[in-house]
Amino acid sequence: MDWNVTVGELLRDYREGWTLPGRAYTEPALYEHDVSTFWRKDWIFVAHLCELRQPGDFVAVEVAGDSLLVVRQDGATVAALHNVCPHRGSIVTEQRAGHCRRFVCPYHQWTFDLKGRLRAAPGLDARHDRADLGLRRAHVRELAGLIFVSTAENPTDFGPVAATVGPMLQPQGLAGARIAHSEEYVVEANWKVLWENHAECLHCVSNHPEYVKANFDRFGPNTTPPHVNARIAAIAEANRLRWGGTALEIEQVTTGFPSFPDREEGRWYGCERTALVEGWATESVDGRLVAPYMGEYSSYDVGTLRVRVLPNLWLHGNCDYAVTTALFPDGPTRTRARVTWLVAAAAQEGADYDRERLVAIWKATSEQDWLVCRRQQAGLSSSAYRPGPLSEESEYNVIRFLSWYVKRLGG
Amino acid sequence: MDWNVTVGELLRDYREGWTLPGRAYTEPALYEHDVSTFWRKDWIFVAHLCELRQPGDFVAVEVAGDSLLVVRQDGATVAALHNVCPHRGSIVTEQRAGHCRRFVCPYHQWTFDLKGRLRAAPGLDARHDRADLGLRRAHVRELAGLIFVSTAENPTDFGPVAATVGPMLQPQGLAGARIAHSEEYVVEANWKVLWENHAECLHCVSNHPEYVKANFDRFGPNTTPPHVNARIAAIAEANRLRWGGTALEIEQVTTGFPSFPDREEGRWYGCERTALVEGWATESVDGRLVAPYMGEYSSYDVGTLRVRVLPNLWLHGNCDYAVTTALFPDGPTRTRARVTWLVAAAAQEGADYDRERLVAIWKATSEQDWLVCRRQQAGLSSSAYRPGPLSEESEYNVIRFLSWYVKRLGG
Amino acid sequence: MDWNVTVGELLRDYREGWTLPGRAYTEPALYEHDVSTFWRKDWIFVAHLCELRQPGDFVAVEVAGDSLLVVRQDGATVAALHNVCPHRGSIVTEQRAGHCRRFVCPYHQWTFDLKGRLRAAPGLDARHDRADLGLRRAHVRELAGLIFVSTAENPTDFGPVAATVGPMLQPQGLAGARIAHSEEYVVEANWKVLWENHAECLHCVSNHPEYVKANFDRFGPNTTPPHVNARIAAIAEANRLRWGGTALEIEQVTTGFPSFPDREEGRWYGCERTALVEGWATESVDGRLVAPYMGEYSSYDVGTLRVRVLPNLWLHGNCDYAVTTALFPDGPTRTRARVTWLVAAAAQEGADYDRERLVAIWKATSEQDWLVCRRQQAGLSSSAYRPGPLSEESEYNVIRFLSWYVKRLGG
Repeated sequence: MDWNVTVGELLRDYREGWTLPGRAYTEPALYEHDVSTFWRKDWIFVAHLCELRQPGDFVAVEVAGDSLLVVRQDGATVAALHNVCPHRGSIVTEQRAGHCRRFVCPYHQWTFDLKGRLRAAPGLDARHDRADLGLRRAHVRELAGLIFVSTAENPTDFGPVAATVGPMLQPQGLAGARIAHSEEYVVEANWKVLWENHAECLHCVSNHPEYVKANFDRFGPNTTPPHVNARIAAIAEANRLRWGGTALEIEQVTTGFPSFPDREEGRWYGCERTALVEGWATESVDGRLVAPYMGEYSSYDVGTLRVRVLPNLWLHGNCDYAVTTALFPDGPTRTRARVTWLVAAAAQEGADYDRERLVAIWKATSEQDWLVCRRQQAGLSSSAYRPGPLSEESEYNVIRFLSWYVKRLGG
Repeated sequence: MDWNVTVGELLRDYREGWTLPGRAYTEPALYEHDVSTFWRKDWIFVAHLCELRQPGDFVAVEVAGDSLLVVRQDGATVAALHNVCPHRGSIVTEQRAGHCRRFVCPYHQWTFDLKGRLRAAPGLDARHDRADLGLRRAHVRELAGLIFVSTAENPTDFGPVAATVGPMLQPQGLAGARIAHSEEYVVEANWKVLWENHAECLHCVSNHPEYVKANFDRFGPNTTPPHVNARIAAIAEANRLRWGGTALEIEQVTTGFPSFPDREEGRWYGCERTALVEGWATESVDGRLVAPYMGEYSSYDVGTLRVRVLPNLWLHGNCDYAVTTALFPDGPTRTRARVTWLVAAAAQEGADYDRERLVAIWKATSEQDWLVCRRQQAGLSSSAYRPGPLSEESEYNVIRFLSWYVKRLGG
Repeated sequence: MDWNVTVGELLRDYREGWTLPGRAYTEPALYEHDVSTFWRKDWIFVAHLCELRQPGDFVAVEVAGDSLLVVRQDGATVAALHNVCPHRGSIVTEQRAGHCRRFVCPYHQWTFDLKGRLRAAPGLDARHDRADLGLRRAHVRELAGLIFVSTAENPTDFGPVAATVGPMLQPQGLAGARIAHSEEYVVEANWKVLWENHAECLHCVSNHPEYVKANFDRFGPNTTPPHVNARIAAIAEANRLRWGGTALEIEQVTTGFPSFPDREEGRWYGCERTALVEGWATESVDGRLVAPYMGEYSSYDVGTLRVRVLPNLWLHGNCDYAVTTALFPDGPTRTRARVTWLVAAAAQEGADYDRERLVAIWKATSEQDWLVCRRQQAGLSSSAYRPGPLSEESEYNVIRFLSWYVKRLGG
């Protein structure tokens, strides 16, 4: 099969510290291989728990060609079901989100309960065992208000991400938050291009004027001026006096993202709390709060919590709002990106926050990133592109991402 | 070649009574195989004879990538010609329908008579034999006003369909009718999805509220309540007293479609006259006539004549109008469907019929079907879909269709 | 690989004097083979020198998926650079044309001088040799104001085209001209269809009413009436009295295009000066001049200069204006065609020429050609098309083009 050739060549030609050849981002056969290797094996972030308040609330999401329903069954359980009738293959619902007691396929009224069990099947011959004919289930996990699914038969162990990210994310209060705004972007770029972009801030100064005012991560770990390190240390020390030993402590006291992911240990998630620039209470255009405190936050000296979970989620959590970015591949050169802003459930638009101010910095930053990703994709299809050198100082996480990707490709 | 793999897997995995795997409806290579196995071998309904009243009248139709001209040559003969100039390959005409004495290729004025013979070829070197350079011909057959073509070298025997369908369709008077309305739909579904939909009425009650008021076929053969069978018998008996022994006799006196097609006998067509519900003189929204009587009809007690011819035609003939649906595949996941309403040639719009009333029931029914077909196609591309169980009681004709299809695939 | 099959079949089945089978114009794999065999090997016309007046002026052009920058470095030199950053693969500029002192990649500010040398690379580790990390260069040649590039490692010898076309084109004064108008067309046809169209004028009488009034080439070499040959001879004789022995002499004194290209000698360019019809001072709708004299022209008795350079350029040069047509393939069934009109640099729109009049004849002629090309492409996908016979009298250059093409395919 075609991808054997492509994967074989990638494995043979790959040099750590260099980018991949352009065909890694354009070939349909390799895209199909990516889908089966990553998107139908790994844990995919699909919804926020707060979208599913009542039993019967559901959202539908499309992951690499598979339509999935995520539905709350009762106060404690969320299920993930394939949105495909096991009878003739019809999509069961075309709603993006909704509420129901049972799912009824519009074609022949096969009816499924919220666990996906077949409850009615007009015309079905008696000899068939209805227990075999429910909506196929996917694995589902909840993590501090985030819902992940896996369509693999035997998914990766979710335990490590839960143990690492869970306690740090819990105070953000996502389970009790509400969605204030969301945007769905279609980015004309391979999903890996978006991750490489997210893995470094070397591009930030010239592309993200709003973002770099709030954050320190424009600097590499070895190139940060001493006075900047001193400023970060001072901010972290003030935080530690109040929050030391709790989940609100700023532990990341240097510039530069922590190393992520880890090819050897198979670590595909990362999480850290970082300092914001002095005068910035949150990631906003002017540093001022844009919404009431959310979750367990009661003051603004907590920096920003950053979470990354491969292959499709990153999150920034501030004291007043959180923003999640979920990627969904849609062919070799296209990725849908859903960006969602969450605030405290009690916050009222207009009275407690202004939507424009709330979304300004991350709407700008996201759209700036999609633009540079689209430009990169455009060049990757050139016959003239050859793998380029990555900066160990500033792009070590791109190196790590590609190294992890190639190792996974090789099985 | 790719389709060898796909066809081989389909043949190996197929289980009678179950649907096909999703890739049977999505793979480009299998679509190409379908085109060569069915659409370039079988008889394809392309036009109504009444569209070609005068010698020189023509219609152009596209069948699976091949553009064809159907042209009346004189009072008695219709020819089918490929709409491709044998010189440089230009389309000869871009008109959908028209009238001409000769076809003149717009590129270099090669000129062909209505039989496709080359009559002028500016610049053609004398050494070439013009007899070899006419428009390539396709086989053509007329059946009670319907025109079929086959682009195969040696097409299937048309005799059986002519013998079976011809006498029953003759009284409908299609040859002397006229087209009152037509719609061309683009349905985002594989052509087989449309046939599976047409092969059962299990979906009718919840999807076709107008249609089921006029027809009895919402019931399966073994699940029809006795009082319904008694009603059908009474309607058929009244019809028999008047039309017994003629082509207007309602012979189909039970619910349920007749079995169709027949894999063993290679029967790819079907035809029967069925009862309409009491009070329904025709298939209309309220049961009242929507046009003057057509063909040999002089009363409304004749039920509905139904015709199906694989792979691309179905027809309902009422006492006052007929409606044909012609399918044309346009890629693995797209089918064009042309729906045409015919009335008596003398009927005048406005005076004799209201176009809205005429088309209401079949416009609604067709569009309802395209919606469920599109939903099915959407789910068939899911990695989670597995062949599903078909109902022997209500979907026996889907079983027969798939069985016929798979046998043909296997050659 | 797929194209091996396709190319092998083409080579085996090709008969000189006949067209190619339809799949030569539709198959994606063969298109990729065309790209590597022709478009990434040959000299491609990409810009006019007069678009690059000042050092730092550049234009960007896309050739078969490769984005290229053509930039003037100083008064004497033009360079061609791949518009792809060697770092992460981003397009360096999205401008279609512009002026700059250095190219700065918008992603990470890698900075290149006008020769493509890397001048700054923020974050690049010191161990990398910057000399290896410039913008990749393509070969570039200038020919009497036309700029050609080749992305091949070892391009074809440009000497013969320079020696043949250069002296004849020099008096047109393109280097000192300016662009008065340009159109970019998307033609739904394979690039070879456009060349076959350009290789014969058998189609002219019925498709190009404006063009044939100005030109004699509607006639074939052996079918020109004696009185027409006498008229051409008289026009050429008058020209010779004045311009004999100079580049303005009309040497093509018969009808019919000169033979082009030459498969045996590998000649892929052609150039000749031909007579215009009496009363036509230029190729215009009414024969009157449409702009001031350009280049070295000082009178209208110079006919028209015609240039063809495979695979992507043709040009007509009149005493008052020139028009170039540049082809850029965009998939198996699509070609972009950029048509550009040039006049003397000093000519002022409104005062010295009227843009509508200037472009009328070649805008009409181009659009008429794109229409017949689209029609031909539509028919070439029919399963009924077989190679057709070409006219030795009128289509000898189509025969030569296909013969040249097939020989190149065979390597």
